[in-house]
Amino acid sequence: MKVTLNRSAFLEELATVQRAISGKTTIPILTGVKLTITESGLTLTGSNADISIETFLNVNNEKANMLIESTGSIVIQARFFNEIIKKLPEQTLTLELIENNQVIITSGKALFNVNGLNAESYPQLPIVDDKTSFKLPARVLNKLISETVFAVSSQESKPILTGVHLTLNNSQLLAVATDSHRLSQRKIELDNVNQVFDVVIPGKSLLELSRSFKDEEELVDISIMDNQILFRTETMNFYSRLLEGNYPDTNRLIPTSFNTEINFNVSNLLSAIDRASLLSHEGRNNIVKLSIDSENVTIYGNSPEIGNVEEKLSYLEVEGEPIVISFNPDYMKASLKSFGDIDITIRFISPIRPFTLQPKDGDIEFIQLITPVRTN
Amino acid sequence: MKVTLNRSAFLEELATVQRAISGKTTIPILTGVKLTITESGLTLTGSNADISIETFLNVNNEKANMLIESTGSIVIQARFFNEIIKKLPEQTLTLELIENNQVIITSGKALFNVNGLNAESYPQLPIVDDKTSFKLPARVLNKLISETVFAVSSQESKPILTGVHLTLNNSQLLAVATDSHRLSQRKIELDNVNQVFDVVIPGKSLLELSRSFKDEEELVDISIMDNQILFRTETMNFYSRLLEGNYPDTNRLIPTSFNTEINFNVSNLLSAIDRASLLSHEGRNNIVKLSIDSENVTIYGNSPEIGNVEEKLSYLEVEGEPIVISFNPDYMKASLKSFGDIDITIRFISPIRPFTLQPKDGDIEFIQLITPVRTN
Repeated sequence: MKVTLNRSAFLEELATVQRAISGKTTIPILTGVKLTITESGLTLTGSNADISIETFLNVNNEKANMLIESTGSIVIQARFFNEIIKKLPEQTLTLELIENNQVIITSGKALFNVNGLNAESYPQLPIVDDKTSFKLPARVLNKLISETVFAVSSQESKPILTGVHLTLNNSQLLAVATDSHRLSQRKIELDNVNQVFDVVIPGKSLLELSRSFKDEEELVDISIMDNQILFRTETMNFYSRLLEGNYPDTNRLIPTSFNTEINFNVSNLLSAIDRASLLSHEGRNNIVKLSIDSENVTIYGNSPEIGNVEEKLSYLEVEGEPIVISFNPDYMKASLKSFGDIDITIRFISPIRPFTLQPKDGDIEFIQLITPVRTN
Repeated sequence: MKVTLNRSAFLEELATVQRAISGKTTIPILTGVKLTITESGLTLTGSNADISIETFLNVNNEKANMLIESTGSIVIQARFFNEIIKKLPEQTLTLELIENNQVIITSGKALFNVNGLNAESYPQLPIVDDKTSFKLPARVLNKLISETVFAVSSQESKPILTGVHLTLNNSQLLAVATDSHRLSQRKIELDNVNQVFDVVIPGKSLLELSRSFKDEEELVDISIMDNQILFRTETMNFYSRLLEGNYPDTNRLIPTSFNTEINFNVSNLLSAIDRASLLSHEGRNNIVKLSIDSENVTIYGNSPEIGNVEEKLSYLEVEGEPIVISFNPDYMKASLKSFGDIDITIRFISPIRPFTLQPKDGDIEFIQLITPVRTN
């Protein structure tokens, strides 16, 4: 195995597979990155218990400017390898596998000789079944992830809630996340997709996935396998394990009739909540209080030690009954951030029933729910 | 006490005094920032066991656009105060002290009511004796700090070595730092200064000081008091305690005759050392080996587990006897970084004697020493 190529093109691929590589694995070979040179190009592989990433650099890739002298395969400790490649002196580097799994890395006058591991010991990645696959642009997938993943549970006590529930049925893709205090749900209508599935994908996998795309417009081919999901682009295969178990039925949680409705601009509301939460974070209960009547909409925060804050809020329109409701400002902040800078509608039933947040204009396919905190 | 002023001007002052405020102090009032309004402006004070910083915002400062309605003084918890001011909605804010040490902070529609502490309980800062003072531009002082402070010891077992030894004698200012493995010394000739002193300033104080100047060209007035040093600019008083004890005599450590001399460009050498240290950091002994002869100059690094690296170095000139010498690459890197991107001369006596580093051209007032590591 011997190849000469552009250092920054190589570093970019290395950074992608490195997302899947953990220093903390109990399987030593998984601390390494697998390099495979064939006549058609260079494949890099990184993997841990949850995700595996494979990237492919085509021999004809102009930026990579690759010269393949011989083919082969080796595994190299990812941590050092990345540092070494970063610090090489020239824009080009050569990798050569010599005897005893040793790899010579040269660039300019620098010569590294590093100990590799036999690539045959590296675990096989799952085999793809092309039958259940559909495509989405990376942009749409990234939006779906950022709109839901923040609401998954971080508590391992209910493992199924640490994932995003993704179902496809009647050409409708539905993504739901909840930690049982708040919920976020996004629907996407697809064109004539016959597949049907119902899976739960770890939130962490989706976060890594959304950071791994190179181009917002590239098409992502999504295949479901037995206990894995594969996201495939032209140059990357991203595998994630699926969570096992039954996801709770969340559809019945979303209320349909309300007593108070108010419209806000997200940025205005977000900065006010942010200020109110400065003090609530210091109190024993991290809550802020929102009071809505026909005259004023006011937010209150307080901490017995530090002091208190109150602010009359700017809002767009309000209608319905007056209400005073308390909630965790961190849930509200995460929810507002996921909308981006638009106008939203918040609808309330009563101080003890969950309230909903939705884009004000048209987009009814995105809805969030936050459970209030009861106070006396 | 009531004042209205520009938020970003206020935040800038707050950030400066905050350098002196630690959340970990055992004296509760020192977790606060002291605000004093007089008819001439606003003074902020922050302090910990090592340093105290006082800044002054003049009532006529255009950017601050200050309106003083009444004078007074209060201490406010620094951590929240800073967060609150940062997140206020408008460019202007009003601070008003009401009864029971409570402070009302308003900006736009936001109103905070925070609990302060009586300013009379705040410790007095030392009184300045103007007799022993001299002036340096902030730029010169910052350079002196960056050239020496990296070499102080981080070990509290020899507390005196955690400081920079600063002496003034015959109009010559001398700064020396050493952790007993390496040493850095800078001399500055001053114009006709009659003062004589010999003090040791904590390295950490100097680091904070060098980050606190607003303008590289402002003049800093330096006064030595009993167990304090005061750095004074037009808008800031920066006090540091001095270290007690006798600083070792370092002058006799600097060798004067050598057997090998070589010139390098700092950036070239630094990147090569950086590469060699990638592997040495993983070995039991963090050392790299430099080999100099009339044909080649080569650097070697190795780690039994990971592999090894060698690189022929680019250098400018070499003369004298061949030598093979080993050293800690981290000392070399810190030393090289303090020179900036210039050409330097390294002079060796033997593999077991300290070697010196100096600017190649002219500037003999800056010299560094690194002790090699004996290997067999």
